[in-house]
Amino acid sequence: MAKDKKLVEQITSMEDDFAQWYTDVVKKAELCDYAGVKGFMAIKPYGYAIWENIKNELDRRFKETGVQNVYMPLLIPESLLDKEKEHVEGFAPEVAWVTMGGNEKLPERLCVRPTSETVFCDFYKNDVTSYRDLPRVYNQWCSVVRWEKETRPFLRTREFLWQEGHTIHATAEEAKERTEQMLNVYADFCEQILAIPVVRGQKTEKEKFAGAVATYTIEALMHDGKALQSGTSHNFGDGFAKAYGVQFTDKDNKLKYVHQTSWGFTTRIIGAVIMVHGDDSGLVLPPRIAPIQADIIPIQQNKEGVLDKANEIFDTLKKAGVSVKVDDTDKTPGYKFAEQEMRGIPVRIEIGPKDIANNQCVVCRRDTREKYTVALDEIATRIPEILEEIQKDMYDRALAHRESHTYTATNYEEFVKTINEKPGFIKAMWCGDRACEDKIKEDTGATARCMPFAQENLSDVCVCCGKPAKKMVYWGRAY
Amino acid sequence: MAKDKKLVEQITSMEDDFAQWYTDVVKKAELCDYAGVKGFMAIKPYGYAIWENIKNELDRRFKETGVQNVYMPLLIPESLLDKEKEHVEGFAPEVAWVTMGGNEKLPERLCVRPTSETVFCDFYKNDVTSYRDLPRVYNQWCSVVRWEKETRPFLRTREFLWQEGHTIHATAEEAKERTEQMLNVYADFCEQILAIPVVRGQKTEKEKFAGAVATYTIEALMHDGKALQSGTSHNFGDGFAKAYGVQFTDKDNKLKYVHQTSWGFTTRIIGAVIMVHGDDSGLVLPPRIAPIQADIIPIQQNKEGVLDKANEIFDTLKKAGVSVKVDDTDKTPGYKFAEQEMRGIPVRIEIGPKDIANNQCVVCRRDTREKYTVALDEIATRIPEILEEIQKDMYDRALAHRESHTYTATNYEEFVKTINEKPGFIKAMWCGDRACEDKIKEDTGATARCMPFAQENLSDVCVCCGKPAKKMVYWGRAY
Repeated sequence: MAKDKKLVEQITSMEDDFAQWYTDVVKKAELCDYAGVKGFMAIKPYGYAIWENIKNELDRRFKETGVQNVYMPLLIPESLLDKEKEHVEGFAPEVAWVTMGGNEKLPERLCVRPTSETVFCDFYKNDVTSYRDLPRVYNQWCSVVRWEKETRPFLRTREFLWQEGHTIHATAEEAKERTEQMLNVYADFCEQILAIPVVRGQKTEKEKFAGAVATYTIEALMHDGKALQSGTSHNFGDGFAKAYGVQFTDKDNKLKYVHQTSWGFTTRIIGAVIMVHGDDSGLVLPPRIAPIQADIIPIQQNKEGVLDKANEIFDTLKKAGVSVKVDDTDKTPGYKFAEQEMRGIPVRIEIGPKDIANNQCVVCRRDTREKYTVALDEIATRIPEILEEIQKDMYDRALAHRESHTYTATNYEEFVKTINEKPGFIKAMWCGDRACEDKIKEDTGATARCMPFAQENLSDVCVCCGKPAKKMVYWGRAY
Repeated sequence: MAKDKKLVEQITSMEDDFAQWYTDVVKKAELCDYAGVKGFMAIKPYGYAIWENIKNELDRRFKETGVQNVYMPLLIPESLLDKEKEHVEGFAPEVAWVTMGGNEKLPERLCVRPTSETVFCDFYKNDVTSYRDLPRVYNQWCSVVRWEKETRPFLRTREFLWQEGHTIHATAEEAKERTEQMLNVYADFCEQILAIPVVRGQKTEKEKFAGAVATYTIEALMHDGKALQSGTSHNFGDGFAKAYGVQFTDKDNKLKYVHQTSWGFTTRIIGAVIMVHGDDSGLVLPPRIAPIQADIIPIQQNKEGVLDKANEIFDTLKKAGVSVKVDDTDKTPGYKFAEQEMRGIPVRIEIGPKDIANNQCVVCRRDTREKYTVALDEIATRIPEILEEIQKDMYDRALAHRESHTYTATNYEEFVKTINEKPGFIKAMWCGDRACEDKIKEDTGATARCMPFAQENLSDVCVCCGKPAKKMVYWGRAY
């Protein structure tokens, strides 16, 4: 059965123009549209269903660690935002300001939250008095607004959906542990559910979050060799607590400042799923996050018994816990195949009169296009098995891609040459000075993605200045 | 075991001051706090857990009717809001305006969505071309902002959480059916899950939504005899479609305007749960919405075996599908009882050394305070049974309360006397003229809550003007 080319021909090849390919996939797979407001997204049902799956699974994992969901105000008074100096300097230039309520000018302008550390600090003040009240481990699912200059669907938009976790603790040690714990929740989620391998590490001073003592990050590598920051977790120490006066009476009866963390994961991860797994036929979704895992496409569906059999397979698979649909529209099978591929549905099940006569169906994997003939009596066990194989293979391929696109450089010439000729991560030693980071950025466009927790000693000197090295860094050009 | 009075004494009695009682319950049950921004809520973990339960169950019911979730932009350009005249007149006076993005004045001001009909219309334009694309049945879970003058937690706040459903259809008939269908989803949910009986009906022209052809509503009666609008569903006909140019090519190849609906359900319903079921000891939650259904309180918990047995009961109930916790803090049992009552946890399970010796526990219902002795071997079946009894009894009591507080009036003197002396609903006939509605509001503060679908003929003439009656109306003072 030949694929209908109409859908496929309309998307640009990845090799020709990766950016245009990305935009085409977002549009043709019906994930989102630009909205009437510049830089804002209208997330369509299919895109939102992916986000719902991400959200439900992450939320479940959060709650296992004791997280409680809350909801804090959307608008933040300027005076509240202003209290932590580094934080306001980081965010003030990119917030949207509400200045009118109804027909009246507000006495103080309010910003639409770009992130809610300040709001939570304000809340903690009345929420906590004693060590018995600690820790507080809160989270909220919401949207935030940041007035970005250039935008791209999912990757950088003026509004995006996310969760922001906010916690306070009695000790610095406990806050550090929570920061690490949540980074590992993100990393495990990306690897186990999204089939995206990530590098876990710490941001440099230059790249860390405004107001944080330490920012941890997970960094993923896209198909085009560019990096994408995929989740961050921040340890604030007691800096915010001091600025906002968040104190508690400890066991020793002394008044102390709380230690604070925050951590966030956003809709931009959908961009990572597209750019790690997609191909020239469109989206390729890992089965564990796919809104529909199996697309049953009847062949010669008007022949007696074909639709009945398709619906029977539907029932069997649904009972087996597979998320499944039957495409019984009046489109041609070829068109349906192209649609299923564009939307990245992990398996397609073809069933026609000949298959029925042989008590079998044809199962086609979206990721590899391998085809299997499966006896109808075995689909309830085989389809889940195939989905698990796809999940595992997708991760393995993404890991192999990252490994084959991770380079090392021990001198600056090699570093520059590699970054210009071989898109990917470069591992290289660094002295710890901001000046070297700035020079690398200026010369190559690459930034320090992270200082990985898994350090290696590639050389004793900084790849840029030759001074003694302090850390191995993953460098790369990034989204 | 005497209850610790500390918690209880701090709340005002309902009879003394219902409004203060309400505020006390919101605060002491830790549902929400006023935030640093005037009129905004900080919804705390316990309040948010109730909303999550509401959301999950409603979302499941929506999806059964074919609803797809999406996410549309938070900010709406003024020019977009302006296109539908009645709608903008209804909402413009109460929106928050964003006028600055970062340090720059915006070329056009943007309002924070008070509701999203206009945004969906803008989206539909590119989303729909043919009758094959219809219906579209969308929904989003988000927050909205309305610049209210006076606010009360959950009942009226400048920001609240809600879902807003938005649908478009090929025919007027289909839009009308969807409007009714969603009202029934709300009504069934309130009655089956929240144990709140509701009157289903249509709003008068005066009370309907800005821009709608017809607004349907469910109206509930609070303990103090005031009404609360608990969910609304709007039929817009093709008015918005004409204002925004949302057209499709029908089967007959003609270009037609779509027919549109929207429907919303908000966090204000938590206020209804408080005010329908609560008592002078605090919140009383219907089991089907309670974040914790059973609170196990060990008596003499330091005696050997007590905590072990409490944890055993916990495991047994958890396996039986009951949402349960053990309160093993170092507070006194009396204090724990008072806390459990304040938070409205449907059953308390007391287990001490004597109970263990007799292989039993004491189960106390939050709603009636009835106590049962239950054999430990039977808790896995008895607790779920008791929870179901509570759910049913709570509904029956709320219904009985509404029925005993629903009056009829056939002349104006009787109407005014009743509303002043007997808080509740008044059923009375109405001529259909706005003048009579205005007069009733001015004289008594009561508004037309709805024209119920279940009409009765109480008299042939309007209760206000004596002209021929067109409709029976539920009147009442409302939140």
